[in-house]
Amino acid sequence: MAGKLNEKFPEKNKQQLKPYRKEADYSYALGAFPTYELIHSKPEIVQKVLVHTDFTDSEKLRLLCAQNHIPFEFNDKLLARISSKENCYAAGVFNKYQPKLREDRPHIVLVNPENMGNLGTIIRTAVGFGIYDAAIILPAADIFAPKTVRASMGALFKLSFQLYHSFEEYRQQFCRHEFFTFMTNGGQALRFKEIPPVKLYSLVFGNEASGLDDSFLNIGTSVYIPQTADVDSLNLPIAVGIGIYAFTSINPPQSM
Amino acid sequence: MAGKLNEKFPEKNKQQLKPYRKEADYSYALGAFPTYELIHSKPEIVQKVLVHTDFTDSEKLRLLCAQNHIPFEFNDKLLARISSKENCYAAGVFNKYQPKLREDRPHIVLVNPENMGNLGTIIRTAVGFGIYDAAIILPAADIFAPKTVRASMGALFKLSFQLYHSFEEYRQQFCRHEFFTFMTNGGQALRFKEIPPVKLYSLVFGNEASGLDDSFLNIGTSVYIPQTADVDSLNLPIAVGIGIYAFTSINPPQSM
Repeated sequence: MAGKLNEKFPEKNKQQLKPYRKEADYSYALGAFPTYELIHSKPEIVQKVLVHTDFTDSEKLRLLCAQNHIPFEFNDKLLARISSKENCYAAGVFNKYQPKLREDRPHIVLVNPENMGNLGTIIRTAVGFGIYDAAIILPAADIFAPKTVRASMGALFKLSFQLYHSFEEYRQQFCRHEFFTFMTNGGQALRFKEIPPVKLYSLVFGNEASGLDDSFLNIGTSVYIPQTADVDSLNLPIAVGIGIYAFTSINPPQSM
Repeated sequence: MAGKLNEKFPEKNKQQLKPYRKEADYSYALGAFPTYELIHSKPEIVQKVLVHTDFTDSEKLRLLCAQNHIPFEFNDKLLARISSKENCYAAGVFNKYQPKLREDRPHIVLVNPENMGNLGTIIRTAVGFGIYDAAIILPAADIFAPKTVRASMGALFKLSFQLYHSFEEYRQQFCRHEFFTFMTNGGQALRFKEIPPVKLYSLVFGNEASGLDDSFLNIGTSVYIPQTADVDSLNLPIAVGIGIYAFTSINPPQSM
């Protein structure tokens, strides 16, 4: 097994794994479920799998690793060091990668999402509704951080995404997409009967605290989710979830 | 002002405020926004308002307290003690209360919700869509915990809720409501065209990890939210948000 590891990652094997850093070229899927999702979706990027000696279901995971020629290691100490949680029973160490957005599929666009838990939850929801492409406008929460990966429940590994330095940069690349910007002061209410039939669409959402600024009122169609005056706004993942659900109900992605 | 406090809460004034405990008969709204919501919605339950000397916008809050005869106190030390966050600039100390569910309005029913952040987010979403009544089936996350209050952004104070020891207990009290149970193995897909026009409905959701058990398949109409095979399930607040959005779109509560 050690020979196999040396073969696949001659350099990596020598490095000592450290708690996650944004600058590193590897990250962790923490927890058994995200680790399974990682191996099933992207076996080629997995450096190794770490397992706790208390993990009762380790044999199934060991077999899956063997099938995929992935090194498998019991290492309680390292698991404790890389996860802040006490009860992390399994982790996948993976190399970061650079997917590309598909031109022929609908997208979500997240402008400056700040919170890793929210980003992960949004990814899980998007993939759940058949949206497999996300543009992230920087600055943004780190998409590869273990916290994001965990909140996505491993759905991150099924997503194509690209990071952009500005919305303009993204927009110029995908001029065939029809843009819908979600804003509390948007022009059209998100009502089922009024969602247009569109094949290629980009659903654009702003930052948790500040939303999208008014310049987005003039980009495509601005949309608001009708709500009572008794709340200031909806929480971002909820707004994204409702937007995606509504659009994909009327315009199911081909993959669904 | 001290006289006023003694008048309203002769006993309470003598007690020393402690970090939140579930058994206590008071709790905290932490943060300026939830504190404003508390005072606007339920001024009669506010014991006092605590403010940090670094809070730049304290004058507005002081005036609102004065208008409502609520004691207002600068107390950095106490704020630090009751909140785990460093930057808590304001807090409202409030007496716990026991609202009643309305018979003539739609409800959400949360069976054993576990996570305080999720519970608060769900409350914020429900109030945002005009659902002002929630039944909570015990055991459940503490609805009065500061973490729940904060995640609700103070929407909790606009909600009527009741705690029940079993779903049966709730069901018997509201037999005029039509029940819709949300389950990944539900019988009907949540599609807009198929949502029936109903006036009095209860949308029932299970626990984060385990959902609703199969006994709920036989209660009212079981419903699933269509999703791809690429995720195990949706996150609970997202599922609740989509369920509420879909039902209130077709059956707007009278208050909207």
